[in-house]
Amino acid sequence: MGTRLEKLVERFGGRLVGDGAIEVNAIAPIDDADGSQITFLSNPRFRSNAARSKAAALILAPADDAEIGPEYAGARIVADNPYAYFARVAQHFMEQHAFRAVPGIHPSACVDAGARVAASACIGPNVTIEAGAVIGEHVLIDAGCFIGRGARVGDQSHFFANVSFHAGCEIGRRGIIHSGAVIGADGFGFAREKGAYIKIPQTGRVVIADDVEIGANTTIDRGALADTIIEEGVKLDNQIQIGHNCHIGAHTAMAGCVGVAGSAKIGKYCTFGGAAMVLGHLTIADNVHISSGSMVSRSILEPGQYTGFYPLAKNADWEKSAVIVRNLATMREKIRELEKTVKRLTEKPSDTK
Amino acid sequence: MGTRLEKLVERFGGRLVGDGAIEVNAIAPIDDADGSQITFLSNPRFRSNAARSKAAALILAPADDAEIGPEYAGARIVADNPYAYFARVAQHFMEQHAFRAVPGIHPSACVDAGARVAASACIGPNVTIEAGAVIGEHVLIDAGCFIGRGARVGDQSHFFANVSFHAGCEIGRRGIIHSGAVIGADGFGFAREKGAYIKIPQTGRVVIADDVEIGANTTIDRGALADTIIEEGVKLDNQIQIGHNCHIGAHTAMAGCVGVAGSAKIGKYCTFGGAAMVLGHLTIADNVHISSGSMVSRSILEPGQYTGFYPLAKNADWEKSAVIVRNLATMREKIRELEKTVKRLTEKPSDTK
Amino acid sequence: MGTRLEKLVERFGGRLVGDGAIEVNAIAPIDDADGSQITFLSNPRFRSNAARSKAAALILAPADDAEIGPEYAGARIVADNPYAYFARVAQHFMEQHAFRAVPGIHPSACVDAGARVAASACIGPNVTIEAGAVIGEHVLIDAGCFIGRGARVGDQSHFFANVSFHAGCEIGRRGIIHSGAVIGADGFGFAREKGAYIKIPQTGRVVIADDVEIGANTTIDRGALADTIIEEGVKLDNQIQIGHNCHIGAHTAMAGCVGVAGSAKIGKYCTFGGAAMVLGHLTIADNVHISSGSMVSRSILEPGQYTGFYPLAKNADWEKSAVIVRNLATMREKIRELEKTVKRLTEKPSDTK
Repeated sequence: MGTRLEKLVERFGGRLVGDGAIEVNAIAPIDDADGSQITFLSNPRFRSNAARSKAAALILAPADDAEIGPEYAGARIVADNPYAYFARVAQHFMEQHAFRAVPGIHPSACVDAGARVAASACIGPNVTIEAGAVIGEHVLIDAGCFIGRGARVGDQSHFFANVSFHAGCEIGRRGIIHSGAVIGADGFGFAREKGAYIKIPQTGRVVIADDVEIGANTTIDRGALADTIIEEGVKLDNQIQIGHNCHIGAHTAMAGCVGVAGSAKIGKYCTFGGAAMVLGHLTIADNVHISSGSMVSRSILEPGQYTGFYPLAKNADWEKSAVIVRNLATMREKIRELEKTVKRLTEKPSDTK
Repeated sequence: MGTRLEKLVERFGGRLVGDGAIEVNAIAPIDDADGSQITFLSNPRFRSNAARSKAAALILAPADDAEIGPEYAGARIVADNPYAYFARVAQHFMEQHAFRAVPGIHPSACVDAGARVAASACIGPNVTIEAGAVIGEHVLIDAGCFIGRGARVGDQSHFFANVSFHAGCEIGRRGIIHSGAVIGADGFGFAREKGAYIKIPQTGRVVIADDVEIGANTTIDRGALADTIIEEGVKLDNQIQIGHNCHIGAHTAMAGCVGVAGSAKIGKYCTFGGAAMVLGHLTIADNVHISSGSMVSRSILEPGQYTGFYPLAKNADWEKSAVIVRNLATMREKIRELEKTVKRLTEKPSDTK
Repeated sequence: MGTRLEKLVERFGGRLVGDGAIEVNAIAPIDDADGSQITFLSNPRFRSNAARSKAAALILAPADDAEIGPEYAGARIVADNPYAYFARVAQHFMEQHAFRAVPGIHPSACVDAGARVAASACIGPNVTIEAGAVIGEHVLIDAGCFIGRGARVGDQSHFFANVSFHAGCEIGRRGIIHSGAVIGADGFGFAREKGAYIKIPQTGRVVIADDVEIGANTTIDRGALADTIIEEGVKLDNQIQIGHNCHIGAHTAMAGCVGVAGSAKIGKYCTFGGAAMVLGHLTIADNVHISSGSMVSRSILEPGQYTGFYPLAKNADWEKSAVIVRNLATMREKIRELEKTVKRLTEKPSDTK
């Protein structure tokens, strides 16, 4: 049940060194791989581990291939980006071994007669699909999901169990939404009157492009009047909150627990470390990278890495530094006083007598 | 299918200037509105945009009305709080266009014979309602929700899909709970014994008053012995965590990702920016405003705005400032030394010779 | 329907002082308890309240028992750890009064013919259990839960409504998972190629030992190749995110909103305050305690309490201190200049003339 190396190269490219008829049946880490498996070297630091690997084949970069030496006896696939190659080979084996759901609608699912579900789609147990929803080819909707009125799910998308995807929202092709995610809940919008809040109806949608992955329990709110937009290739980890009317540029990635307040406009190819927060109505340029735990309180118009979190310390040391931080204005004042006095001393030393 | 301006004024008040027979069928932003729509001006900064608007009618404040000038040719509704007026008009159009669920219990819902569901309520597909639960008039419980034993849901409340509302909990009238929210999970309470934890049963409830809105994937824990209390008009955004035995005062609003540890007592009319955190057992007075990303580690007894997050910087600059923050005690010591020396220099310069 | 004190001592140990035939039917706080209830004293500060308590019986430590005095007339149970004793007695009454679900599978549940469910287990309405899953004795799976292919749930575990527990994952005995939690979603793993991301299949599992409790809407991702491991007795509060391939040591507890990035290795008996964050690939020793709101950006190899959050201040004061924090390097430079000048002044005062 293995795959010949020549098949891999045929499908994913790269230059094969060795016997193309060798079969591999899984991908494994350098140190664990055995003679039925393929491994990969993506960091030159592990070159000597690769040389000792018992894997049947090794994916590696041209520079590493030039240095690998005769100690390594297996076959090689030389690829410009061995880590990306590994990802593709891993996907290949995943597809081979993955459970294959049978197309059709589970009898316990409640699919409104006014919804349109492709014959190749799989609708799991206890799913609800409302009128006007459109479910594309080869889509998987797992158990307990909710798809609201008029929502659209693009071909080959996969919703894991218990996703809520609200009325009118859209996701493109090959989208992945993990369990517990909520797409298209109302944005947080109120008018204040005499201290109390009057709800502003949230009539926009969430519109998600192709190849977007959304993590477990992540929430993306629908727009107030306009839409919330997620461009192609965006990757969101778990527990993320995206406020109404945000616009997230293509191929931006956010780690877990990030929060983005309403109407923020974030560029393409950005990255956000875990628990970073972005205030509302800000603009963030393309290629901006925000470190974990950092609060973005102003627009960032220049690419680069930005950080802002309090450094961790032993509690007793933190207590000391925190007290000083609170009183930095006093410290600055003392320095100013010192500067004045020292200036007087240096300029007119006779005055001090 | 429009609404006459005179109808709006009849329903929501305000002073009409122009032809009451004009019909409008939607609300739209100043720059987008066309001759079949109504718009609003809530910020004097956009007065000239309003003057150029093609809207059939404009909601605005008396001060703006006095200044609007003859350029604007449409009808006007003069209201003291145009933004609140806008919210009400938007609700009016929302109600007109909203899908209207048919009262009744979906055949796939599992409603215990010992539950009491008003005939005007709508219970969606795959809902579970346990014994003793009471569901009020015109309540909407959307697909996949769970309502535990003896829970009570007040008239006109709306639970979106996949809400979990646990045994014994209560919510008042006109409550809105968004998808994935969990009300009444066990609080986090343990007794420690030899390093391990023994669970303390959480036997209190969550009691929520009228006109409360709770965001997607927000969690509010049940009390340990007493109840967790949410007063009327509280608005909670998504991904918020409220610990057991908290008490949140009326008309307090919290943005996404806020966390409140157990037994915190928070006043009325407070606001919390996104990802603000409150430690347990603290008291926060009425009208306290906490900025985003700020950690409240002590009680706050005086109204006002409070902030505490590390300012964002380019990563290289942050690294420098973070190292100094870690060593602020050393810096303070140096300043003290300087002060001593300088004092000696100024007082007895001869000693330094 | 009460419980005789002698029964409690028989079951939970401790030394009884007073009439073992006295019956109590609930546990209540010192000041509220009446003659049909038992209370406890875990903090000597409340000794005088205990002395005045109207409770039928009082659980207290030997040191407090020696001091309680004749004012208190009720029975006493003297125990080394009265708070743990209280927890156990509270559990006892909880069990007595708790709703007892009838074993069996609700007719609306979709249990695959290839799943194995113990006859003593209770499977609630609208639950989905896929092929190969194994559900142990006396397990409770509440409404709307999803259990994936080949997952294993140990004896006496309890999943509250709407939990998602994915394929191949395992939890031991007496596990508790609260509503909305997602166990075994894909970890966040991608290879980057030309700016875009290629998904790395996540083929590991989540393996959870005995006596673990997992809070509402908490997410624990499956491993990439190896497994994510949660050791026995770990307690996780709500809204926590645990990344792929993490390893959490036994009896570690985390408060709400904590985030742990992938491949972090956390020791035993640690505690994490609310919203603490841990970066990926770090190692944290046993008995490390992280304060709320603190970002752990380096490995911690020494036990102790660690903290790092910006101290809260009135907004105006924070603005001042934040500006200085941004410019601490300038301040340090000024101090260095002062030091140089003052050194010159003290060493060779004549040079300054």
